[in-house]
Amino acid sequence: MPAPPGRIAVLGIGLIGGSIGLAAAQRVASADVFGYDPDPRAAARAKHLGAIDVAADSIAEACEGAEVIFCAAPVGALSELIEKALAAAGPETVVTDVGSTKRDLVARHGGDPRFIGGHPLTGAETAGVEGAREDLFVGARWYLTPTEISGGLLYDRLQRTIAAFGARPQAIDAEARDRLMATVSHLPHLLAFSMMNSVTGQEHGDDFLSLAGPGFRDFTRIAASDPKVWRDILLSNRDELLAQSKLFQQTLRTFAQAMQQGDAQALEDMVTLASETRAHWRMGAKRK
Amino acid sequence: MPAPPGRIAVLGIGLIGGSIGLAAAQRVASADVFGYDPDPRAAARAKHLGAIDVAADSIAEACEGAEVIFCAAPVGALSELIEKALAAAGPETVVTDVGSTKRDLVARHGGDPRFIGGHPLTGAETAGVEGAREDLFVGARWYLTPTEISGGLLYDRLQRTIAAFGARPQAIDAEARDRLMATVSHLPHLLAFSMMNSVTGQEHGDDFLSLAGPGFRDFTRIAASDPKVWRDILLSNRDELLAQSKLFQQTLRTFAQAMQQGDAQALEDMVTLASETRAHWRMGAKRK
Repeated sequence: MPAPPGRIAVLGIGLIGGSIGLAAAQRVASADVFGYDPDPRAAARAKHLGAIDVAADSIAEACEGAEVIFCAAPVGALSELIEKALAAAGPETVVTDVGSTKRDLVARHGGDPRFIGGHPLTGAETAGVEGAREDLFVGARWYLTPTEISGGLLYDRLQRTIAAFGARPQAIDAEARDRLMATVSHLPHLLAFSMMNSVTGQEHGDDFLSLAGPGFRDFTRIAASDPKVWRDILLSNRDELLAQSKLFQQTLRTFAQAMQQGDAQALEDMVTLASETRAHWRMGAKRK
Repeated sequence: MPAPPGRIAVLGIGLIGGSIGLAAAQRVASADVFGYDPDPRAAARAKHLGAIDVAADSIAEACEGAEVIFCAAPVGALSELIEKALAAAGPETVVTDVGSTKRDLVARHGGDPRFIGGHPLTGAETAGVEGAREDLFVGARWYLTPTEISGGLLYDRLQRTIAAFGARPQAIDAEARDRLMATVSHLPHLLAFSMMNSVTGQEHGDDFLSLAGPGFRDFTRIAASDPKVWRDILLSNRDELLAQSKLFQQTLRTFAQAMQQGDAQALEDMVTLASETRAHWRMGAKRK
C-alpha cells in the first residue's frame, strides 16, 4: 500500500483550491501543502486561513518535490496551467485538475501518463478562498478520467488522497463525463441564463420579475452563477452542450405542437412523464 | 361599509376550495360556507375537516342565498362551472374563480357584471382537500380582474372577503395577467417539463439523472406538478405561452451563436446580465 502523499501542491487558490488545502491540512496528517496563485494576495490570504503551509513564489517552487499537484484555476486557464505543472513535476508526480469539462484537457495532456483529469461535484457557486471549507468534499462525488496509459501507482495515490478528503472518487470516460455534465448541469444553467435574459429583455420585464413567485425562484437560482466561470464552461463544453440544447428544443417543440393542435391527451401524457420522473427522482439515489 | 358576507359558496373542494372554506370559517366570523363538489366523497371529507358547513347536493343548492361564490374547479372545467354558478346566483351575488389563466374566462363571462375573475398566488402544487389550510392565503397576492361593467359594490365585497382570508387583493387587466403568468410561471414549468423529457428520452438518460446534483434538483422541482392541472394551463394560456416560448428560444439562440463563434466576451456579457439580475432579485421585493 503506497504511503500517503508527503507534499501536495495547489495551483490556483480560490474556493476549490483553498478547500483542497484545508482538507489536506486537516485530513491528511502527513501532508505539507505548497500553494501558488498568480495573485500573491490570494496566496497570502490562503496561508492566513491555514489553507496552505507555504505560499510559493512560482509554479516551479510549488511543484518541487510534490507527489500530487492539483490545478485549480478557472476552466479557461487550466490547459496552460496543466502544461506548466507537468513541466515542473517530477517523474513520479501525479498532476490533476478540477475543471468541469474534461474531454479537451484529456485530449491535450492525456499523452503524459502523469496527467489524470478530475472534477469534484461540490455544487458550490461562490468563488474566492474566503469561501473555502475543509469539509467541502465530504460525501461529494469526484470524477477522475484515467486513460489507458495512466500510471496505476499514480492513479492509486490520487484516489487515496481524494478519498482522504472525504470525497468519493469515481473513474469515468472523459467524453461520457462531458455529455453527463452538459445534460444535467450545463444545459440547466444555459436555460436559466436564457430565461432571465428573456424576461428582462422584454417590455414590462422588470415588472414581471417583481411579481414572480417561488417556482421562478428555484428554477432560476443557478442563473446567479459566476459569469467568468460559466463563460469558460459554455465554451469548453460547447459541442456536447449544443447537442443537448438541440435535443431539448426538439422536446420543447413537441409541447408547442400539442398546444397549437389543442391535443390535451398528448399534453397530459408528456406532463405526466415529466412529473412522474421528477417525483420519483432523488438526488444521488443510484450512487454506488 | 358593506357587511361581511353571510353566506359563501365554494364549488369544487380541492386544495384551494377547501382552503377558502377553512379561511372563511376561521377568519370571517359571519360566514356560513356551503360547498359543492361533483364527487360527494370530496364534499363529505371537506365537511369532516371543517372546510364547509353544509355539503350541498347541487350547484343550485350551494349557490342559493350566497353573497360570494368561489368557483374552484380545475382550469379546464371552470368555464362551464362559472356559467352554472351565474345561472344559480342571485342578482346581488358576486361570482369569482381561482383559475391561473384569465383572459378566456373574462372574454366569455365578463359580459355579466356579477362575474369578476380571480387567482390567488399560493405556489401550492399538491391537489386534494386533505392539503387545505386555513392560512394558505396569508400574505399571498390574489389577483382580481374587474371589467368596466363590474359592479362596484360586488367588487368591494369580493375584495374584503379575500382580504379577510389574509390575502392581498390586486386588480389587474386579464390580458396583462396572462402574459405575466406565461412569463414567470407557465414558461418555467414548460421548460422544466421539457428538460425532464429531454433527459429521459435519450440514451443513458436514466444514468445521467442518477448523477444529477443540487442545481438540477432546484431547476426541475416544478416539473413534478400535477399533469391535469398543467395540461389545462398549457392549453388555456397557450397564445401568451407560445409567444413567451418564442422569445425565450430567440435568447437561447443568441447564446448558441456566441458559443459557436467562440465569442467569449459576448458570453460573459450575457451571463453577467443574467447573473446580476438574478442575484439582485428578491421574491416579492417590489410588492406594494
